[in-house]
Amino acid sequence: MYALVKTKPAPGAEVKRVSRPQVGERDILVEVKAATVCGTDVHIWEWNPWAQSRVKPPLIIGHELCGEVVEVGEKVARVKVGDLISAETHIVDGTCYQCLTNKKHLCNHMTILGVDRDGAFADYLALPEENAWVNDPELDPFVAAMQEPLGNAVHSALPADNVEDLAGRYAAVLGCGPIGLMAIAVLKKLGVSKVVATEVKPLRLEFAKAMGADLVLNPREEKDIVGKVLDYTDGRGVDIVLEMSGAPSALIQGLEMATNGCRVSLLGLPDNPVSIDLSRLVVFKGLRIFGITGRRMYETWHQVHELLRDKDFKAKMEQLVTHKLPMKDIEEGMELINSGKAIKVGLYPQWK
Amino acid sequence: MYALVKTKPAPGAEVKRVSRPQVGERDILVEVKAATVCGTDVHIWEWNPWAQSRVKPPLIIGHELCGEVVEVGEKVARVKVGDLISAETHIVDGTCYQCLTNKKHLCNHMTILGVDRDGAFADYLALPEENAWVNDPELDPFVAAMQEPLGNAVHSALPADNVEDLAGRYAAVLGCGPIGLMAIAVLKKLGVSKVVATEVKPLRLEFAKAMGADLVLNPREEKDIVGKVLDYTDGRGVDIVLEMSGAPSALIQGLEMATNGCRVSLLGLPDNPVSIDLSRLVVFKGLRIFGITGRRMYETWHQVHELLRDKDFKAKMEQLVTHKLPMKDIEEGMELINSGKAIKVGLYPQWK
Amino acid sequence: MYALVKTKPAPGAEVKRVSRPQVGERDILVEVKAATVCGTDVHIWEWNPWAQSRVKPPLIIGHELCGEVVEVGEKVARVKVGDLISAETHIVDGTCYQCLTNKKHLCNHMTILGVDRDGAFADYLALPEENAWVNDPELDPFVAAMQEPLGNAVHSALPADNVEDLAGRYAAVLGCGPIGLMAIAVLKKLGVSKVVATEVKPLRLEFAKAMGADLVLNPREEKDIVGKVLDYTDGRGVDIVLEMSGAPSALIQGLEMATNGCRVSLLGLPDNPVSIDLSRLVVFKGLRIFGITGRRMYETWHQVHELLRDKDFKAKMEQLVTHKLPMKDIEEGMELINSGKAIKVGLYPQWK
Amino acid sequence: MYALVKTKPAPGAEVKRVSRPQVGERDILVEVKAATVCGTDVHIWEWNPWAQSRVKPPLIIGHELCGEVVEVGEKVARVKVGDLISAETHIVDGTCYQCLTNKKHLCNHMTILGVDRDGAFADYLALPEENAWVNDPELDPFVAAMQEPLGNAVHSALPADNVEDLAGRYAAVLGCGPIGLMAIAVLKKLGVSKVVATEVKPLRLEFAKAMGADLVLNPREEKDIVGKVLDYTDGRGVDIVLEMSGAPSALIQGLEMATNGCRVSLLGLPDNPVSIDLSRLVVFKGLRIFGITGRRMYETWHQVHELLRDKDFKAKMEQLVTHKLPMKDIEEGMELINSGKAIKVGLYPQWK
Repeated sequence: MYALVKTKPAPGAEVKRVSRPQVGERDILVEVKAATVCGTDVHIWEWNPWAQSRVKPPLIIGHELCGEVVEVGEKVARVKVGDLISAETHIVDGTCYQCLTNKKHLCNHMTILGVDRDGAFADYLALPEENAWVNDPELDPFVAAMQEPLGNAVHSALPADNVEDLAGRYAAVLGCGPIGLMAIAVLKKLGVSKVVATEVKPLRLEFAKAMGADLVLNPREEKDIVGKVLDYTDGRGVDIVLEMSGAPSALIQGLEMATNGCRVSLLGLPDNPVSIDLSRLVVFKGLRIFGITGRRMYETWHQVHELLRDKDFKAKMEQLVTHKLPMKDIEEGMELINSGKAIKVGLYPQWK
Repeated sequence: MYALVKTKPAPGAEVKRVSRPQVGERDILVEVKAATVCGTDVHIWEWNPWAQSRVKPPLIIGHELCGEVVEVGEKVARVKVGDLISAETHIVDGTCYQCLTNKKHLCNHMTILGVDRDGAFADYLALPEENAWVNDPELDPFVAAMQEPLGNAVHSALPADNVEDLAGRYAAVLGCGPIGLMAIAVLKKLGVSKVVATEVKPLRLEFAKAMGADLVLNPREEKDIVGKVLDYTDGRGVDIVLEMSGAPSALIQGLEMATNGCRVSLLGLPDNPVSIDLSRLVVFKGLRIFGITGRRMYETWHQVHELLRDKDFKAKMEQLVTHKLPMKDIEEGMELINSGKAIKVGLYPQWK
Repeated sequence: MYALVKTKPAPGAEVKRVSRPQVGERDILVEVKAATVCGTDVHIWEWNPWAQSRVKPPLIIGHELCGEVVEVGEKVARVKVGDLISAETHIVDGTCYQCLTNKKHLCNHMTILGVDRDGAFADYLALPEENAWVNDPELDPFVAAMQEPLGNAVHSALPADNVEDLAGRYAAVLGCGPIGLMAIAVLKKLGVSKVVATEVKPLRLEFAKAMGADLVLNPREEKDIVGKVLDYTDGRGVDIVLEMSGAPSALIQGLEMATNGCRVSLLGLPDNPVSIDLSRLVVFKGLRIFGITGRRMYETWHQVHELLRDKDFKAKMEQLVTHKLPMKDIEEGMELINSGKAIKVGLYPQWK
Repeated sequence: MYALVKTKPAPGAEVKRVSRPQVGERDILVEVKAATVCGTDVHIWEWNPWAQSRVKPPLIIGHELCGEVVEVGEKVARVKVGDLISAETHIVDGTCYQCLTNKKHLCNHMTILGVDRDGAFADYLALPEENAWVNDPELDPFVAAMQEPLGNAVHSALPADNVEDLAGRYAAVLGCGPIGLMAIAVLKKLGVSKVVATEVKPLRLEFAKAMGADLVLNPREEKDIVGKVLDYTDGRGVDIVLEMSGAPSALIQGLEMATNGCRVSLLGLPDNPVSIDLSRLVVFKGLRIFGITGRRMYETWHQVHELLRDKDFKAKMEQLVTHKLPMKDIEEGMELINSGKAIKVGLYPQWK
């Protein structure tokens, strides 16, 4: 089969012919139909410091996918040949303290598809049965592939079984990359009353409106983001902040615009330590801050699955896939993303 | 002023000229603009056993209202003359264990407007400032009056600060009186994926669809309600049951169609004790049952307020007020309700 | 090996020589060191209606155990030969909706050790690795066996990840069988301020005091249980009710003595439907009722494990094992239980 | 009457004769029996930058107190002359968004006793009835005064209605000032399995053990605090971190020793912004961070009240009051605190 392989510790990846993956007795073999490009893929492609410290070539890259099951190991019970599946990309040990207390997404010995083991930008992929999410057959395969980052968005909005509900709240989404955009749509769908979004890239600002944001602000153009949000919320500030940018300035703005007792989800990954006036912005305000990684296994997947039953919501997700390219043209995809011309780039296996 | 007064312990009520209520230093005087008729008003009108045991004539009846503040006591700080307000109809002591631990709606010494003290079917009403909810001036006064039962619907869906979220769940609403109908609209607005509704009255069945129910069943016509709900949910059953009918048969159906671990809210009031196979239907299924009374003070009111910002949702609420009559014609209103020709009857002060 | 086998659909069980169980590749073989007798074992022994409807002889009975791992299947990774383990006795499918959303204890396809498959009153037992809880080597084997019902007690007190905390609350434990007694000790250990216990058997009443109950009442001797509890709590009633008896009268008393907004856990299994005045006792009181089955997998096990680090708490648990008998003398054990002379009967493998 | 008055914007305070406070119709007049000195009082005494920015002399300082009610306003209903009361020192507006949604402790217009209005180091104090907590008459008045900071400790352990329970968890308390010491006792009382404490002052280290800490570490003497905590918890880390020191190094250690998914309460107030590697320490670890200010009104007070029914717990609290001085000798008290010779200093009204 063909695959996009990171062959050496350097930027880029190569189209290469490799052997089809072996399938263990609890694994499934998936013929990839569609994949989508994640920010993590960009980091690995560009071979940034994080990628250098973590990724060990050779590695087939990519992890957001939809594919058809073409073979199942002998102990596989739930998934069937012919099923269209997407992948929970976090492979957990199932035996650590976190796994045994309903926090599999925080497993101490996690490996990630396309990061620590061969991934999805290929003709075929092997996957533990447990990590396969069976899709409705009619779901668009690119949207199906995007359920993984959509899960991040839902997890940011609903980080635990019992958090304060979203109904009628005011929320801010800081950073409108693909997950931020998805989060806007999720919050509106779940009854948030006012969603404010901040972002600097023009295309993303447009999409923020299309996803349903009630107020969209560009920190490069507006002088007083916090003041504008306070005005828009009658001085109250927001009840929920989703920090999706990783920019320290956005995080601080988020803490400033938070109403006392606000819930803040941190999904964005700052490159460096961030300096925070904890006394004023966290302690006295009684804020609650949640670090968000991955998706709850598999509560979040059920939520994602059901949200996509809604036609309007699904149409918004389809809209986010601005480009679909053959896998061989991944370099073009990377350029589209980096130049701000694409929101989400889809890939399909085609090599010549 | 004029008012509808229950003058004696018997069915009915009279239009009567009475003196305008006195306003204490923390009270406000409200000129009633619109009121709506609640099932409780029907019970008091009909003088059913519950009413006989609780209500002490003479009493001005009615409690769902919208009115303009025309006078405020000297210690009133938050509410202003000219404000359009609705009433939290439960007046609490503020000092009991429940009041001091965020459960004011379960106050041990609660008095209720139009039940234990003079109510809203009148030209004027006195109300503690604390119980006044200030409305957006543009809100339709009949919808404003209905915020009180809408609060019951929201409270049934979200009975505590931190309950399992509604996102992507399957829910059943059993009984489509006004609060059940409102609950359907609330659940859909808050991201419930599938809402099943059961009801026997034809007009209400129609409205259940209009409110957004995905499947509407009439227990008088369908033989196997539980089986149909299981089929509709791929054998899983529902995650949330809102029992709004008070009918024992509906309650049992609700417990049967509940998936293991389901949350059940009981708002309907059975007239008599209900016999339940607790071992099979509650213990082994690991169900969680919430008794629902009133609205959370004032979390629920904030939620209601924000939900009504949504035009589609507000339009659904307006649609529920099928009739608007002068207060003098309350008897006609009672007949419309009892004959199943009305969903929600609005009243306005007009006496001749 | 020898085992206690229910050979036919009738009361009793026989000591029988049977072949040692086969061990699948994800199973472990356990040499039983100690077991304890559960009420369920009594029901199966006596062949009551429930047992007749569920149990299919031949079956090795018993499920509460502690044993040493003597063999492991080839895919077993976490558990080692030589480990002393106890068993989570509920074997789940791992793939249903409940299993995939953190409710394994409510699995739709659960099988139970000693009920649906061969159990623990035997020299050896085969168990899926997943269901093995590795004990501290120094833990008394009878206490180790009792962790399974102790888990029921903890689960009743803490039925979900995020329930209202126990700190400084008032609680009632209705029914002081072994799990009720354990629950008293658990509640006191977790900071409950006042624990009231009700029970009719004299020996159990004594043990209720020893476990730490602050007030112990015998419904056969006291005329006004509810009044006494209200007095003892300064008129407030209790915040938490654990119904452990299955007696309808106790359940109703529990609902009566509950303060508004109280949390009620139902673990006791009434034989027949129970008639409840839901309007007065559940809806208007705003109660929250939790059906309790099994133990949370494996949150509850972690809690049990840590509670037993406390010497005083562990000593209380040891105290509950009033008798230790060879397995061949199980009939004597059944008589001790039924006559009210024993609290918890321990068994060890000895056949001659 | 006499009082300790901050007469000018400079270090110290004077014993001064002032007029007895006026009592509004919803206020009570309290004759102070005992008071205790808080870190805030030290800051105001020393006139540190925070005090300079907030406090407006002249002001009677002090806020932790126990006293007897000697006069009540005409609208006072709950509190009676002769009651022994302590004070919730945060006076809220009751009408803001936070107050109306069960977050009074985060009121947007809060004034604080002894900071923004006259306080407790005086013969008499005026207090809104709402802020009076009626004590058991037999409670030691110095312990009664300390309920306010004890409430901070309880609030740190239980920051919301529904947080993950403490039962059998591992916790770290970073910083063993009075509130940290109280928190150790609270955590042990509520069933935390292992409590680790860090502190640099020798006397506090001793008291940490007396309060029940299982492991006590001095960061000035130990090289690898985090490693030691990981060892002590079998590599797992702690489930709960209470940051009580305000030291950035302690906070970072807390985040390092936290197990994935850990809950962190921040009560300590860093003087300056703290630089945090959010990606590694918060996002990937899935931590939940709670800013803690004040006490939940009045859930926390109920919890404190009940905890003090326990003799052992109460004895620990009594032990913390290492010195009792007349108010005139406050300077000596300040020296005892600053030199590390006192844990908690009690004051009683005596002026000559």
